[in-house]
Amino acid sequence: MSRVRVAAFGVSLDGFGAGPNQSLEHPLGEGFGEIMSWFFPTQFFRRMHAGQQDGETGVDNSMAEKSFENVGAWILGRNMFGPVRGPWPNEDWKGWWGEEPPYHCQVFVLTHHARGTLRMKGGTTFHFVTDGIEAALERARQAAGGRDVRIGGGTSTVRQYLHAKLIDELHLAQRPLLMGRGENLFAGLDLPALGYQCSERIAGERATHLILRRS
Amino acid sequence: MSRVRVAAFGVSLDGFGAGPNQSLEHPLGEGFGEIMSWFFPTQFFRRMHAGQQDGETGVDNSMAEKSFENVGAWILGRNMFGPVRGPWPNEDWKGWWGEEPPYHCQVFVLTHHARGTLRMKGGTTFHFVTDGIEAALERARQAAGGRDVRIGGGTSTVRQYLHAKLIDELHLAQRPLLMGRGENLFAGLDLPALGYQCSERIAGERATHLILRRS
Repeated sequence: MSRVRVAAFGVSLDGFGAGPNQSLEHPLGEGFGEIMSWFFPTQFFRRMHAGQQDGETGVDNSMAEKSFENVGAWILGRNMFGPVRGPWPNEDWKGWWGEEPPYHCQVFVLTHHARGTLRMKGGTTFHFVTDGIEAALERARQAAGGRDVRIGGGTSTVRQYLHAKLIDELHLAQRPLLMGRGENLFAGLDLPALGYQCSERIAGERATHLILRRS
Repeated sequence: MSRVRVAAFGVSLDGFGAGPNQSLEHPLGEGFGEIMSWFFPTQFFRRMHAGQQDGETGVDNSMAEKSFENVGAWILGRNMFGPVRGPWPNEDWKGWWGEEPPYHCQVFVLTHHARGTLRMKGGTTFHFVTDGIEAALERARQAAGGRDVRIGGGTSTVRQYLHAKLIDELHLAQRPLLMGRGENLFAGLDLPALGYQCSERIAGERATHLILRRS
């Protein structure tokens, strides 16, 4: 069955899903690289990112692998796609990932500013959706062809979909680190009232993996 | 060296240190018993609370034991002492713990309403401190005689001492549960800016133990 999932979503111990002051130099906000530093040493990431054969195996690696399994389409908030804010000055920016992004499927980017479809190497196509999160999900579901829709983030996008009760499963990778500032995933969200509970806790080498599901 | 510690302090995955609607029936707020349910099955708690010889051993039990080691004095917020709010109508309320509370030392209760010292069985004495958190800490340090001062909570009290940079070590026991409502430990607190970082993560049977220290 097709599910709507958030996976391998890094959070700090104090609930931050992004650091402050996002920019070209700090796509995830200042200090947030540390929060994702459970992911970077995994064999899965090393292989995907750099075609390397090294990297660690273990619980974190297995959770990283699972996060990409059975994904048929992605949804990204616009800031996950790039540092450009406001209207697109041109179409030069093609994402953080170079010529061949790691998605290899249809990716729906939420934005208020229309832009033409962008086809990349390796089967990734970026569609820019201006008519809201539900429309993006509808299109992503169709594109996924029965596989899962993965909501890649950022924090604000995940919060919007949680608030709308549209996420079936959310896998958080909690690093034992404090951020103090940035975008808080939980602030003002009453997740139990929205139908969510935590159904699994899996201790990885560098992160604690928490699986939230909606009943 | 004498330290100021918070220990075995239960928090939910979304950062709540107490549930909503605290009352006589729900001293920790509604639903919060679940957050402390890593503590109740331990051999340490069973022995302390009911003089029982059963209970689980393991990581959670060992963290529960450590939380009581080398403690020379306690500080409690007034709501940790009881459900009475505002001026004391009389001196009938003597704490949640019956005749012989589990402290066995001097306990300093923060309150805006003066009350006489209360001596209980087993060496616990409750002092009611009306001149603020620093005065309470000063008195607790003297009473501790070189051992640690443990700040027992609740959330608001811990937040005040964190904000004042007066806590040396904070051991959180994070349960993989969502609360959604109640008192959030982290909200609006920039812990790194206050000098705190997480220095250890220990996966217990029912809780993830996170040790925060101030540098």
